[in-house]
Amino acid sequence: MSLVENRSPRLRAVMGELMAHVGTARTVGVTGSPGVGKSTLVTAMVGAYRSTGARVGVLAVDPSSPFTGGAVLGDRVRMQEYATDAGVYIRSMASRGHLGGLSWATPQALRVLDAVGFEVVVIETVGVGQSEVEVAGLADTTVVALAPGMGDGIQAAKAGILEIGDVFVVNKADRDGAGTVVRDLTAMLRAAPSVPALESAGWTPPVLRTIAHRGSGVEGLVQALAEHADWLSSSGRLQARRRRQAREEIEALAQADFLDRARAGLGDATIDDLAARVAAGELDPYSAADQLLPSGERY
Amino acid sequence: MSLVENRSPRLRAVMGELMAHVGTARTVGVTGSPGVGKSTLVTAMVGAYRSTGARVGVLAVDPSSPFTGGAVLGDRVRMQEYATDAGVYIRSMASRGHLGGLSWATPQALRVLDAVGFEVVVIETVGVGQSEVEVAGLADTTVVALAPGMGDGIQAAKAGILEIGDVFVVNKADRDGAGTVVRDLTAMLRAAPSVPALESAGWTPPVLRTIAHRGSGVEGLVQALAEHADWLSSSGRLQARRRRQAREEIEALAQADFLDRARAGLGDATIDDLAARVAAGELDPYSAADQLLPSGERY
Repeated sequence: MSLVENRSPRLRAVMGELMAHVGTARTVGVTGSPGVGKSTLVTAMVGAYRSTGARVGVLAVDPSSPFTGGAVLGDRVRMQEYATDAGVYIRSMASRGHLGGLSWATPQALRVLDAVGFEVVVIETVGVGQSEVEVAGLADTTVVALAPGMGDGIQAAKAGILEIGDVFVVNKADRDGAGTVVRDLTAMLRAAPSVPALESAGWTPPVLRTIAHRGSGVEGLVQALAEHADWLSSSGRLQARRRRQAREEIEALAQADFLDRARAGLGDATIDDLAARVAAGELDPYSAADQLLPSGERY
Repeated sequence: MSLVENRSPRLRAVMGELMAHVGTARTVGVTGSPGVGKSTLVTAMVGAYRSTGARVGVLAVDPSSPFTGGAVLGDRVRMQEYATDAGVYIRSMASRGHLGGLSWATPQALRVLDAVGFEVVVIETVGVGQSEVEVAGLADTTVVALAPGMGDGIQAAKAGILEIGDVFVVNKADRDGAGTVVRDLTAMLRAAPSVPALESAGWTPPVLRTIAHRGSGVEGLVQALAEHADWLSSSGRLQARRRRQAREEIEALAQADFLDRARAGLGDATIDDLAARVAAGELDPYSAADQLLPSGERY
């Protein structure tokens, strides 16, 4: 995993070796706004999977997640129980500052966990924002988590995350307004037009209730995830999703490699100089970008 | 602006022409979680700037923003008053699905508005998520908006957006808990280590209160933004920020161009075939990405 994070040159050789051993792990994305209790939900899911004997990996792609360092005490305590459990692996993927970095690093981290025998890998993303929605697409099954009292059904609709959910969870279901969120969400999902071309066509997303900090409803969630996994396999959608994911990974990787090569080839000082000329209005950004692109015949 | 959104080949020529006319607009990013009232705040800011005679552009990089179509009625009504005002230009930049697309398109849209004489351009971003934080970096001055009752001070700290704020606004300041958010935020900002290398070193971010739907506190915000703009100019930080922005734009543009060329050169069917082989475990993603990269000598 360190090789992935450091973009080690050895990663290439390692990936080559791993390829023959991947494809069996089920990947579950869990996404939702800050405050809906995603991390608590993920922790409860880890417990539910562990009780069935499955090995579980967690990749946290959320700068506000306790898994990535921004811990609130309760979550830290809950995670402690897995600190010495070799069947649980938790890693933060919340590196910022590398354009599209999550898009190429996350699938490779997934592949490592898959190859070494984790049956389930959970990707936690913050659920608001372009990169995060893209990363949610890296999972076979996407769980959209909401909570009462945050105007969250409407916010979810506005943020366009209704479309990406295979399973919906209304967490904090013991709070006032949980029933309203469930009803609103169910109505919005029913009202959504069925588009046969969508990856999810033929699957009706269930709307479940959980109280994650008590573990309530989490078994039902794990059951729904198993049903979705079965549906993906039997409908042929799993293969289609994984091909799309692979294409996105290849393109993100090529873009990252391209930029590395351009920086190495030109040198940082030259690129900084181009930037200074653009900032001063002396050069347009396209002409500057051209300097980073290779010239001549190419393919 | 349509040229920007459509990535028209003519954009290159247009940008070349525009370069001599840019650099005077002040750019303000407004970021914050869904529900803090960002759009209402931006609308109120537009009103405050208009009352001084300034022309104002708004670029909404937030899929949940009413400016991008997910409107709630109140915001739509408030925006109506500007529908026939030639001094106000509002555009959604919330295109998804193009990796890093916001990073290259937003600065170009900014440049267009700058060149045609808008004194102020406001970029509204959702404030959670990697792309959105990157886009916030495109503004000269970044406003981080929070609201009481959302655990929002802590969430902001966790999400890492404290570092990017030049001015903080606690909106919905008439609600319970507003004082607590202001106090917590002020304490967190004071506790933050002063890092001379940071772009913001030497500037103490003010924490302001607004009730945006009533316009309360908005003049004070506009005043604070003017003070920050003055500080940027007099400290030399403006030039440094704009060079960094230009470098990010150039690199994002080069990455987008690179991917376009690779897709055109190889053809979609070939890339899909590579993806299918990666998904099947027959090919590693690095070797697949290599096919997209040009071969041979380059710079």
